[in-house]
Amino acid sequence: MASESDATRFDFLVIGGGSGGLAGARRAAELGANAAVIESHKLGGTCVNVGCVPKKVMWNAAVHAEYLHDHCDYGFETGSDDHELFQKLLRHFLERITFIQGYARFTDDAEPTVEVNGKKYTAPHILISTGGQPSVLSDEEVPGASLGINSDGFFELETLPKRSVIVGAGYIAVEMAGILSTLGSKTSLIIRQTGVLRNFDALISTNCTKEIQNNGIDLWKNSQVKSVCKTEKGLEVTIVTKDPDKTNDEKISVIEEVDCLLWAIGRQPNTAGLNIGAMGVDTDDRGHIIVDDFQNTTRSGIYAVGDVCGKALLTPVAIAAGRKLAHRLFEGKKDSKLDYSCIPTVVFSHPPIGTVGLTEEEAVQTKGKENVKIYKTSFTPMYHAITRRKSQCIMKLVCVGKEEKVVGLHMQGLGCDEMLQGFAVAIKMGATKEDFDKTVAIHPTSSEEFVTMR
Amino acid sequence: MASESDATRFDFLVIGGGSGGLAGARRAAELGANAAVIESHKLGGTCVNVGCVPKKVMWNAAVHAEYLHDHCDYGFETGSDDHELFQKLLRHFLERITFIQGYARFTDDAEPTVEVNGKKYTAPHILISTGGQPSVLSDEEVPGASLGINSDGFFELETLPKRSVIVGAGYIAVEMAGILSTLGSKTSLIIRQTGVLRNFDALISTNCTKEIQNNGIDLWKNSQVKSVCKTEKGLEVTIVTKDPDKTNDEKISVIEEVDCLLWAIGRQPNTAGLNIGAMGVDTDDRGHIIVDDFQNTTRSGIYAVGDVCGKALLTPVAIAAGRKLAHRLFEGKKDSKLDYSCIPTVVFSHPPIGTVGLTEEEAVQTKGKENVKIYKTSFTPMYHAITRRKSQCIMKLVCVGKEEKVVGLHMQGLGCDEMLQGFAVAIKMGATKEDFDKTVAIHPTSSEEFVTMR
Repeated sequence: MASESDATRFDFLVIGGGSGGLAGARRAAELGANAAVIESHKLGGTCVNVGCVPKKVMWNAAVHAEYLHDHCDYGFETGSDDHELFQKLLRHFLERITFIQGYARFTDDAEPTVEVNGKKYTAPHILISTGGQPSVLSDEEVPGASLGINSDGFFELETLPKRSVIVGAGYIAVEMAGILSTLGSKTSLIIRQTGVLRNFDALISTNCTKEIQNNGIDLWKNSQVKSVCKTEKGLEVTIVTKDPDKTNDEKISVIEEVDCLLWAIGRQPNTAGLNIGAMGVDTDDRGHIIVDDFQNTTRSGIYAVGDVCGKALLTPVAIAAGRKLAHRLFEGKKDSKLDYSCIPTVVFSHPPIGTVGLTEEEAVQTKGKENVKIYKTSFTPMYHAITRRKSQCIMKLVCVGKEEKVVGLHMQGLGCDEMLQGFAVAIKMGATKEDFDKTVAIHPTSSEEFVTMR
Repeated sequence: MASESDATRFDFLVIGGGSGGLAGARRAAELGANAAVIESHKLGGTCVNVGCVPKKVMWNAAVHAEYLHDHCDYGFETGSDDHELFQKLLRHFLERITFIQGYARFTDDAEPTVEVNGKKYTAPHILISTGGQPSVLSDEEVPGASLGINSDGFFELETLPKRSVIVGAGYIAVEMAGILSTLGSKTSLIIRQTGVLRNFDALISTNCTKEIQNNGIDLWKNSQVKSVCKTEKGLEVTIVTKDPDKTNDEKISVIEEVDCLLWAIGRQPNTAGLNIGAMGVDTDDRGHIIVDDFQNTTRSGIYAVGDVCGKALLTPVAIAAGRKLAHRLFEGKKDSKLDYSCIPTVVFSHPPIGTVGLTEEEAVQTKGKENVKIYKTSFTPMYHAITRRKSQCIMKLVCVGKEEKVVGLHMQGLGCDEMLQGFAVAIKMGATKEDFDKTVAIHPTSSEEFVTMR
């Protein structure tokens, strides 16, 4: 073991080369800091390798399949080129940053120091941005669970499964089920309760659950996987369905000949092997690193951003937090921190979902029912005027107080993915219903409905 | 002729059942006024019958053709169903409004009165919302000009022309040329100068001109139609091209076998036959009715909204102006008027254009070059990562002053049509660059580029 004095010294040492870590390191380097990034796997982390980016590419492919078209240009096998392209792009970004390949582990040295492949590195500021990974069930919890894959495995699929079973009700389950089904895989979705996206506004949850069924996905409500076994014809997934009104009423069903069982039951932080416990870096009961508003952990000189903190698991959040931190540490901007309110999110379902701010339920709980006013609309987009396939566009504004401040905007429909960002700027600025109404509508679009609601 | 005392009396008499007139009448009726609408043709005016709505339906069809798909669901012949649907919808809106079919003409009576089919009607408030129509060239101006059609005729086409020539550089010419070309018609576009959309920001004008050529449209710069004649194989369009640097250098060319020559050279107000001159309703040198900020004409008790006024020829502008007027006249809201600043517009080109506020040139002229800061970006949307066909996404923010107030936003790219409305709300609210930057990006979208520009 090298001694502490042997440690290579940087101004800023980042553990984890995902979105948050790279953004922080890059901004720090721009501000003159000597920065290093430690990454054990591929640069880019979840977003670029097994998350947003390949997901969006596949969603685009699925949208094409909805249009029954362009299969020659779009397909699973082309995904890898895209990976390589992004790897190249990422390396380009790293010109001024030292790149260290390997797993980082905090040492017992008095000054926070990490060891990678037997070599020591230290810095007055160390950022943990190790991200997360899909949660898995053990074969003890569900016999045969390990016969399934998770979202990481999804991106390694080489051919379209003929018969897919997705387990989960979160946005990852919804997106994966949508992509598989739309591309032509017969798809079942197993959810524990009666609707998907249960932490979204109820209108979104209800509508998305409906659209999933309209899109031909076989939805199993109040259901859980009991066991999985392998036969010559594929997997056999045994499902137990409980009637929520009758506690003792259980129904057992089997889905046969499944060639893709995909667990999308949540994500957990990557902290194993870091030895953060010995550093006095506290975690919560689910293992997420606890940080304050400024991304400080409980140990001075050690910070954390992104999915490892378990709050708003979104690429741009990790990026923004990493950059804000770099400005605070290396530009002396003491107040530089990310405001976690009004973070807009898009779910690439079919059709896509956009949401920012409070749900109706949250608004009623925090502001009082008498202070909340809801505007909503539902229509068939003009696109569907002459198609047999239909999807609805639903929209909701959650307003509070006499001035009707817009505190939440929720929508699902064609085009909602690109529609949200501008409204998010307005809402972040404190827009009222009147500010919406004062803006002239753009005709004919779906987005104009938000400024003509009555 | 009926005498004045015979005139049927309303509270609000609207001449022209297009977007602005119907919106004004409807809102007035909601506010308790006894309203009547006079329309000589079809309800809905340009927007519903020969404008925005059928145009958008055809643009959607063209987008499908870009995706090489869904020709079975989309096609010219289905357009008429759509017309009928909208006619039905419009009639439904009119429940509380009297509908008078025919042409209105102001009489010589002392009190403003109109006559329709020999019957007189009057009201203390008369709104002129007669809209506009495509400008035409006479056969004296261009021999054979009348062998061509205009945008009204475009919507009556029964089959896709094999060979189309569009004349004009405005948004209607750009949209029609894009739809025809994308659906498979060999299309030439004749423009007088070197670029299309010359009143848009220069970045948009340049980029759209480039995209038009990328999309396979045969663009004739510095050119005008000299004459048109009919042969057995279709129209022969003779074009004169002048080198702008050499005044005497003219080149004559002929495009043969044209089966659709479409003039899109501007629009003119519908005021013929109204007898407004005798009423003291003044018009400008192009025949547009002159109104003040409150839509008052120069004759008390007579108002005008929409295209007939020649300002911001957009459906939602006419609608908003009509409604604001109804609130002023029938709800006593003295200050109710439409703010014509920051009106967002979308051009349904390929890819679509979105624009709101000042162009860079306008900002430099009005605020001074030293006070203007431009942010811009250009990228290939992720959609094209694996397609052979490519289109660029370009974006520009025009900011002024130390606080970098966003006074203009201009873009062309996939999804820009639905992207603009929210940004328009923020800009109308007075957003600064910092307000944009404070908003967390939505990844992966094109729209996120607007909040991450540096």
